[in-house]
This record gives sequence, C-alpha cells and structure tokens, in this order.
Amino acid sequence: MSIELYDLAGQDPDLMFSPFCWRIRMALLHKGLDFTVIPWRFSDRSATAGSGYDAVPVIRDGERWVGDSWAIALYLDRTYPQAPLMHNAESQAAARLVLGVCGTCVFPAAVRVAVLAAYKLLDDASKPYFRASREAMFACTLEELDVGEHRAKAGLAEGLQAFTEVLTASEYLGGEAPTYADYVLFGVLKWMDIVSPYAPLDDAGPVAGWFDRLQNLYGGYAAKVPTVRSATVAGPDTPSP
Amino acid sequence: MSIELYDLAGQDPDLMFSPFCWRIRMALLHKGLDFTVIPWRFSDRSATAGSGYDAVPVIRDGERWVGDSWAIALYLDRTYPQAPLMHNAESQAAARLVLGVCGTCVFPAAVRVAVLAAYKLLDDASKPYFRASREAMFACTLEELDVGEHRAKAGLAEGLQAFTEVLTASEYLGGEAPTYADYVLFGVLKWMDIVSPYAPLDDAGPVAGWFDRLQNLYGGYAAKVPTVRSATVAGPDTPSP
Repeated sequence: MSIELYDLAGQDPDLMFSPFCWRIRMALLHKGLDFTVIPWRFSDRSATAGSGYDAVPVIRDGERWVGDSWAIALYLDRTYPQAPLMHNAESQAAARLVLGVCGTCVFPAAVRVAVLAAYKLLDDASKPYFRASREAMFACTLEELDVGEHRAKAGLAEGLQAFTEVLTASEYLGGEAPTYADYVLFGVLKWMDIVSPYAPLDDAGPVAGWFDRLQNLYGGYAAKVPTVRSATVAGPDTPSP
Repeated sequence: MSIELYDLAGQDPDLMFSPFCWRIRMALLHKGLDFTVIPWRFSDRSATAGSGYDAVPVIRDGERWVGDSWAIALYLDRTYPQAPLMHNAESQAAARLVLGVCGTCVFPAAVRVAVLAAYKLLDDASKPYFRASREAMFACTLEELDVGEHRAKAGLAEGLQAFTEVLTASEYLGGEAPTYADYVLFGVLKWMDIVSPYAPLDDAGPVAGWFDRLQNLYGGYAAKVPTVRSATVAGPDTPSP
C-alpha cells in the first residue's frame, strides 16, 4: 500500500514548496517507496487531524502516522531497511551536522529569499496564520525580510560557504552517493527554487552544481516540478506564442 | 621507526598550540602510531628546509615528508590502514564539511580569543613575521581582533552553534567513536584552550562536554598538556605555596 505524504500546498496545488516536506519526498524516492502526495494547507488541517501532529510533513503508512521530518527519516530506515538514508551512527551524525548548519547559516539567509515569496503563493485563508506566526518568529514584518534579489543572493552564497569545500571535492554530502544529509540541505534550496521570482543559486558555485545533480536524481523528479517561474511562463496570464 | 611531527612551539617549548598540528597529534594518537614531536618556530624553519613545505604540521616518516594537515591525514590512512581516521568517502565528506564550518563559523570567532594571545607566547624573533602576516590576513591589527573575554566567548558560542544539535545527540562528530571530523574541530578549540588567559568554552554547552571527552582520549593526552593558565600557576614568577 502506498505511503501517504501530507505536504504543504499553495493556492495552486501544483506548487508544493515546504523545505521539510522536500526532505521526505527525496527520502521516499531514495528508498524507492511508493507514495502519494496529499495537499495540506494551514487553513485546513483536518486531513491530519487524527495524526497527533499539527504541521507537515506527516506520513501515513497503513495505520501508522509519523510526523517531523527527522523522525520520519529514522522511521523509514527502521521500517524499510533497503537503500538506507543513513548507514550508521556516523551517517546520522553527519546529517545532524547538516541540520545544524542549515539552522545557523542557511535558513537565516534563505528566509530573505523565500518567506515573503512563499506567503504570496498561499491560499488567502492560510495567509493570516502564516504572516502572524512568521512575523513573531523573525521579529519583523514579512516585507522587512525581503532585502531584494542582489542582497538576498549574496547573503545566500555566504550562508552556503561551509558546503563549498566538501562539494568541490565530493559529488554529494554523503560522499559518492546521496544520503539524508544531502536531502536536509536540498529541501531548503528546493523551497527557494520553487517560490523565488528569481533563480536564487546563481552565485552559489559548487553548491549550485550539486543542486542540479540532486534535481536530476530519480528520473529528474525535482527538476520536473513546477516553480513559480515556470508556472508564470506557462500561466494563464501569459499570451500563447 | 617513530614518525617525526614538526609542531609550532612558543617561546616556552612546552606550549604547542597550532590548531592544525593538534589535528595531526590527535590523528597519530587515534592510529596508535609512535611519534616524536619536534618544536618548530616561524623564526627558524631550517628543520623542515628539505621538506618542501614552509608551514607546519609537517611529518617525516622515514625518508618521506608530508605537509598540510588534510594531506597528512589522508597519508596516514593510506599508509597505516589500522584504526581509520575516515572510513570511506562519506566519512571524508563529513570531515570536509567540518573543515568548512570551522572556516566559515568557528575560526572567525576563535581568532578573537586566540590570535593576540598566541602572538604573546611566541619567541621574540617570530613575532614580526606573525604580526605582519596575520594583520594582512585579517586586515586589522592584532590588538583590534581582541574584543575582550565577554564578547569573544559569546561570539565563540555562536560560532559553535552548528555543532550543538549533533553533539547533543551523539558522543562524537563521528557518531559513536571519534573520526578525523572530531579532530578537525578539536584542533581549533585546543588552540584557544592553550593560549587563552581565560577558559574559552564556558558558554559552549554540549560542545564543551564533547571537548572534555576529546581531552580525555588516549590516556588524557590533551588534558595533560600545559596551557598558558596552568603554566602561569606553575610558572617561575609565582611564589611557591
């Protein structure tokens, strides 16, 4: 039976951009598990009401609900030992370090690219919650987070510096093959890639090359997903050629 | 035959504080290799003149010279496969990520604790080179790097934040046992520990606990080494009790 992945959707249900949900999409693809994505919105959390979790990602695997991206990754490795996301305690420690670097260096820069842009893509009913919770979290307005393309990209390139050396020497954070460590960072970058009106990784050097490798894994799954830029090009307001 | 490790010494040859040399001391201890430490100073590099390297650490293993801490770590694993410092490509990638985080987050904070303090411990003949090269590197005077104990410790705790999550969950950056990833960070912290007039890790939470675990490895090798604080207590200017 297919695993259900409850994933944050924007007003357009094809735009699914949660960084934490992307970690789990990639984890499910990595393990070759069959899954169905179910759109979820801040304005209607009833689909996961029985889960015990009030945020996504949440998965439902048969009768079992699991929430929180790290807990889901551990659950998947425990329940489906094929194609481990993390091979051992060393591998888990490496992924936790990537979580730490994302928290201290990458997210603080990424929010300037993505938070206001993500807000604009939400359904109207979700916007008040999102604005209030994020403005409390960042202690400023969503508009104040937006420093413009030039400064946001420069800040992002700086926030990604810690990854430059390893991604110059290795194909993946996991070495010769991706591990959950790769998906932890990828989720943050894919979030920006989907919601940002400009391509955010232009200045990111070897990290941009690694991002493209991740985009092309699993039949190019992530590369094929619409972004706000592709959606705009193909959108109803664009005259046909 | 014992491996020779050429290691930066202060005026007092017992004070050996180079962060890069500490990585290699710990690596040699990890592998259980017999080694002899040979003091080296900026003011007299003749001992390694035949090596092809103009900075330490440099090791001499029989007729073979190897310099640069990362290259030495790889050499040791290749030449002495017992007790690997890094088990595979994933392990190497994790250590390179720690190098990256040290470069972007830890060193910029650590220099405020350690650079002026290290300068004061050098032999007089080494000081002009050290001052000129470091002032060019940091684009300020050594004195300007020194922001005082309170601010330096707060900055250091912030620079170490990326490691908090992993070192709360794991004993070591390598998971259940130390790997070269651990020694990469340890070198930077041991440098500060030796040269700083105050204990620098008071505010560093789980990282401080991990530092103590590393200090106590290999018969407490690192814990037993004199620091400027212990040297002061035992020094000739202190009246005997």
